[in-house]
Amino acid sequence: MSDDSSANDALGTLRAAIKQAVTDVHEQTPLAQSFTNFVTINLVANAQLAAGGTAAMSYLPDDVIATAEIAGSNYINVGTLLPFFKDALPEIARKLHENGKTWVLDPVAAGIGETRTFILESFRDAPPTIVRGNASEVIALDAMWGLADADSTDPTTRPAGVEAVDEVDAAIDAAKRVARHLAKHSPVGKGAVAVSGAVDLVTDGERTFRLPGGSAMMTKITGAGCSLGGVTATYLAVAEPLVAALAASLLYDRASEIAEVKSDGPGSFQVALLDALWNVTADQVAASDIIETN
Amino acid sequence: MSDDSSANDALGTLRAAIKQAVTDVHEQTPLAQSFTNFVTINLVANAQLAAGGTAAMSYLPDDVIATAEIAGSNYINVGTLLPFFKDALPEIARKLHENGKTWVLDPVAAGIGETRTFILESFRDAPPTIVRGNASEVIALDAMWGLADADSTDPTTRPAGVEAVDEVDAAIDAAKRVARHLAKHSPVGKGAVAVSGAVDLVTDGERTFRLPGGSAMMTKITGAGCSLGGVTATYLAVAEPLVAALAASLLYDRASEIAEVKSDGPGSFQVALLDALWNVTADQVAASDIIETN
Amino acid sequence: MSDDSSANDALGTLRAAIKQAVTDVHEQTPLAQSFTNFVTINLVANAQLAAGGTAAMSYLPDDVIATAEIAGSNYINVGTLLPFFKDALPEIARKLHENGKTWVLDPVAAGIGETRTFILESFRDAPPTIVRGNASEVIALDAMWGLADADSTDPTTRPAGVEAVDEVDAAIDAAKRVARHLAKHSPVGKGAVAVSGAVDLVTDGERTFRLPGGSAMMTKITGAGCSLGGVTATYLAVAEPLVAALAASLLYDRASEIAEVKSDGPGSFQVALLDALWNVTADQVAASDIIETN
Repeated sequence: MSDDSSANDALGTLRAAIKQAVTDVHEQTPLAQSFTNFVTINLVANAQLAAGGTAAMSYLPDDVIATAEIAGSNYINVGTLLPFFKDALPEIARKLHENGKTWVLDPVAAGIGETRTFILESFRDAPPTIVRGNASEVIALDAMWGLADADSTDPTTRPAGVEAVDEVDAAIDAAKRVARHLAKHSPVGKGAVAVSGAVDLVTDGERTFRLPGGSAMMTKITGAGCSLGGVTATYLAVAEPLVAALAASLLYDRASEIAEVKSDGPGSFQVALLDALWNVTADQVAASDIIETN
Repeated sequence: MSDDSSANDALGTLRAAIKQAVTDVHEQTPLAQSFTNFVTINLVANAQLAAGGTAAMSYLPDDVIATAEIAGSNYINVGTLLPFFKDALPEIARKLHENGKTWVLDPVAAGIGETRTFILESFRDAPPTIVRGNASEVIALDAMWGLADADSTDPTTRPAGVEAVDEVDAAIDAAKRVARHLAKHSPVGKGAVAVSGAVDLVTDGERTFRLPGGSAMMTKITGAGCSLGGVTATYLAVAEPLVAALAASLLYDRASEIAEVKSDGPGSFQVALLDALWNVTADQVAASDIIETN
Repeated sequence: MSDDSSANDALGTLRAAIKQAVTDVHEQTPLAQSFTNFVTINLVANAQLAAGGTAAMSYLPDDVIATAEIAGSNYINVGTLLPFFKDALPEIARKLHENGKTWVLDPVAAGIGETRTFILESFRDAPPTIVRGNASEVIALDAMWGLADADSTDPTTRPAGVEAVDEVDAAIDAAKRVARHLAKHSPVGKGAVAVSGAVDLVTDGERTFRLPGGSAMMTKITGAGCSLGGVTATYLAVAEPLVAALAASLLYDRASEIAEVKSDGPGSFQVALLDALWNVTADQVAASDIIETN
């Protein structure tokens, strides 16, 4: 960074923090706890281990709350709901909030099914610290929480469930509103939203970044997004929300590029992705393209 | 197919439809929804993606019914039952039936446990469009549904749970009866049964086909059959039941042969199988040995 | 074994039994049933298949008890609890006990959460035949069951949940007490405890063995311990508890060493581990270092 404009200075500070987060995870092996769907629960745990952390998965409120006392952060994914989740998840979110615990939400399939909508709406007043989703899910969450009305500086509304051609751009306003809402309620005073797509987008509600690169093969395995959410929680155990969200998305972008080159299809891609999550260095993650945007 | 007897003409028509189904899945990436067991749920989703489709997994009736509205077909597998499945699965089957939705059933472990028997019996009057199972399971389902009595043209009965030496042959009559029962209730007017074994067998109740080949390593990984059921639902989203069942079984036979050659044990076999499901072409599937039988 | 002291004679007898167990599993493909956590259920089943056995996974009491009638042994793992497990697991343990069925327990996260403690305490009077856990879990189980008080020859008590520097040594006394408790209630008159760590420890309460070797990569994938518990049940279907626990731990040590050499990270390590579980021979397992200790 020899051409040091003040924008580059700010980005340099961010790069240093990202590098520190990746290094800290490798040195501290922090525990991130997950309440996650049954489809990709194994990949979430293995990705957290491959990134250098440790994993514990729980569903019972007493189990989740007890484990949260020893975990550095937590992850909730609403992919495959069981009947008891309708009571358990609002209770867990409330207790995490009361106990000042940070957590990452993956609002999988937001907008589909009454039970999922009930659960996601209940998170409004005891929200996560980071949301990691695709464009449609972030837009749906913004609509459910009524944030466009509540935030008069940015009145744009979009229908839930939209999958725009440039999906990430369709979700920028919603992502910023959600991030500001998270920050307002955050135990660490800050929040972030990561929108995954062809070009990932990460915002804390004030600053917004586009992350080019990655691999289209990520859409040909199940759990690429879920496990990114889990690894985001691993980084949140050692870093502030914006840095955690950036570090995790960048690690995935670099690892998926390596995995695509090394694989012959989705089976070997997933294997190579886990290997690359393990082998990519803090320097490689921190040196990634990061494009600040409005 | 230059030696065109009328039998070969009919088979040629079938091959063209199989090729079209494989091509359509790659071009349309249809969504097939699954309510499936916890052991192999990840492989089911990854196999559907590798075959070119997309996947969504659900358990709550409100979630399943909402997702069925946007899915091309559905898959139910009764492998690992939870208590609430006893009410949920009969309700889901009835609503899929009322809403004219197609679905594939894998009657895993049919005949074992009172709850599983209760659930499978409940499907009699709101049945799937395709059944995919092993010989014992198809025989057990035929017995549970009392089809031998109801179908006087084919009065043979066999005890449930039998695992014959030539297992596929033991299930031919049961498979035909079940297929005719499915057709009677089908939203598309047709049904099919696929019996997996050393030589797979597929029937729509009128025509019956043996599919030689495949790999014995398929019995050394968990979920080969379950994921074949899921991919059958993927094809059912774009093709009629007989064609869907044939295309899926043939894709698996060709992919498993390639995977066996490329692997050194069951770990690398599963990886190579997913790669091969992705790489096998519509032409390769359609050119498979297909032996019409009685 | 030409230098035949009586210690070596005894070890020679044990080696012959271990070799026989590995061979018998390959020849008889015994069924071991599992009630196990959702994170690693797929790896448990695949590991049992790779070791030469067959797998069935169940959660409903009626399903578990019906399947236990045709299974050679059973496995219960308390990793990811659902609400109904609180009633189901004590009921299942009691019925397995009444029906004289052997089973292996993995007391995952023993000491965390009220529900898990309730379930593990309930196993005191209808205990498993083998316990396979890490040092902290075995120590926690010993404390929950109040065995230090009940066994005046070995009065040492340790707090639950301790993770000692030399973790296996911290658990020796607890492991012996638990093994003697299991033996007292065992349908086969014997019990065993396997403590996994950098050096594994296996005891039947009378004789104790240290098993050096293995791979540190086992801690970088999820389910190494869980799947070892499942494979222990596979061996318990054909061998006495001490032999089953030794054979399974030794197979894992040899397989993990091979997998570490063949892999580039945790993704390829898991694939290579399953391949090695399949390829390691009975002679290789039986020729392992086995160090008898006090």
